[in-house]
Amino acid sequence: MRFNDKLRLAWKKNNSLVCVGLDPDLSRLPAGMAQQRESIFEFNKTIIDATHDVVCAYKPQIAYFSAYSAEEQLEQTIQYIKTHYPDIPVILDSKRGDIGSTAQKYAVEAFERYQADAVTINPYMGFDSAEPFLNYQDRGVILLCRTSNRGAGDIQDLIVDGVPLYERVADLVANQWNKHNNCLLVVGATWPEQMAKIRNIVGDMPFLVPGAGAQGGDVEQLVKAGKTADGTGLIVNSSRGVLYASNGPDFVEAARNEVIKLRDLINQFR
Amino acid sequence: MRFNDKLRLAWKKNNSLVCVGLDPDLSRLPAGMAQQRESIFEFNKTIIDATHDVVCAYKPQIAYFSAYSAEEQLEQTIQYIKTHYPDIPVILDSKRGDIGSTAQKYAVEAFERYQADAVTINPYMGFDSAEPFLNYQDRGVILLCRTSNRGAGDIQDLIVDGVPLYERVADLVANQWNKHNNCLLVVGATWPEQMAKIRNIVGDMPFLVPGAGAQGGDVEQLVKAGKTADGTGLIVNSSRGVLYASNGPDFVEAARNEVIKLRDLINQFR
Repeated sequence: MRFNDKLRLAWKKNNSLVCVGLDPDLSRLPAGMAQQRESIFEFNKTIIDATHDVVCAYKPQIAYFSAYSAEEQLEQTIQYIKTHYPDIPVILDSKRGDIGSTAQKYAVEAFERYQADAVTINPYMGFDSAEPFLNYQDRGVILLCRTSNRGAGDIQDLIVDGVPLYERVADLVANQWNKHNNCLLVVGATWPEQMAKIRNIVGDMPFLVPGAGAQGGDVEQLVKAGKTADGTGLIVNSSRGVLYASNGPDFVEAARNEVIKLRDLINQFR
Repeated sequence: MRFNDKLRLAWKKNNSLVCVGLDPDLSRLPAGMAQQRESIFEFNKTIIDATHDVVCAYKPQIAYFSAYSAEEQLEQTIQYIKTHYPDIPVILDSKRGDIGSTAQKYAVEAFERYQADAVTINPYMGFDSAEPFLNYQDRGVILLCRTSNRGAGDIQDLIVDGVPLYERVADLVANQWNKHNNCLLVVGATWPEQMAKIRNIVGDMPFLVPGAGAQGGDVEQLVKAGKTADGTGLIVNSSRGVLYASNGPDFVEAARNEVIKLRDLINQFR
């Protein structure tokens, strides 16, 4: 099944636009869980079991695994989702970007080794750096457009032919790179005004939206700015706000409650 | 020792601006070497032993390891260089780019897990995505500026305030991001004209130059365009042209000869 179809079914099935970001930080694991590599899969599994019916996607962030030499835990985590909750798409957040033969190896990493349904990539190196990913036509390729961080504007807001670079990237992706209809964009929750402009440029292309949780984007504004006509179009990610909602023995319940709270808040404005 | 000092000593010691890129492709290993993950370290070790006195750096490209689940072979490779040839800096080519806490994990991956002397990163997400790397003041941070591939211009050549984006990136890095004097730039060998302009903007900042080998950049032009007043300033990378110079039993000699040929060609024009 193509990624965008899988995503659409997950949005509908769980009536949710919430994606849980799996950013396992050993120093922030719940009390009682050993701060060691082996805990990572166990922690992720617990979070996944507690939230699988209220999310539209999971997004493991690969840096949180590779910093701990925990590639095996990442493999186990994705395998677990695919085995137990096969309707929920997995987005590998790795923001890779390189040329031809190297990009091909990164595509193998994401789509064959880790079996991700979609991957985030960086557009700075141009079309031929995206092409090896795009050629996996049943997978999603999520290009950075306007990110949620403080310094996002340093490069992304520079004015090109009268419009900010991120609008130009959105235009390039929508009108030139999306030949197989498998592109998505990263558009930060912290910039609803920019999100509305990008929505205008790209039609119904889905957005992966970081920054709604810990980074504090306003949910009402972002949903109104980014939703498509049918009230979807958004994968609203929360990582730390969910994973570390509580450090105590109630962490599972607290994580689930955070997801439900965010889901319901989003659904008010769809 | 700071990265730029280590690099300067290596340039001098081996009278070489050549960097060997370690892109181990299992399907291209020499005849007689098993096409399996375990061969990767053995192959790299052989290449390193054959070239350590004629290079200024090694540059393992992480995608060629992660596609094969060969993180351990990458660790072994870097460890081998640091143990046996500690004067030769190791550049981890991973082109990472993410924000705050995630960028911090990527910096841990590059500088602590793999113990790289320098790392390549992508500037698209802005200063705060580079900062966690820059804070390792003894390590080098090599930012993508003008890459060597066909599609490089799709984004990098867009005109911002009358100059191409890559010049703006060079200016930002040289004048705002380089507070600890540990920034370098990626400037492709295939664009000598652009390289000369960038050299003009950034003074003596070293360039990592891909594309001189398999991608076919002209060596005379690139050296003249990119060298600093003292005849250095360049880390000229060749990967496939060296690693796969021969597929036969003479592959070690062939690899060494390719490096020497490129070194001597460069030195003619320094």
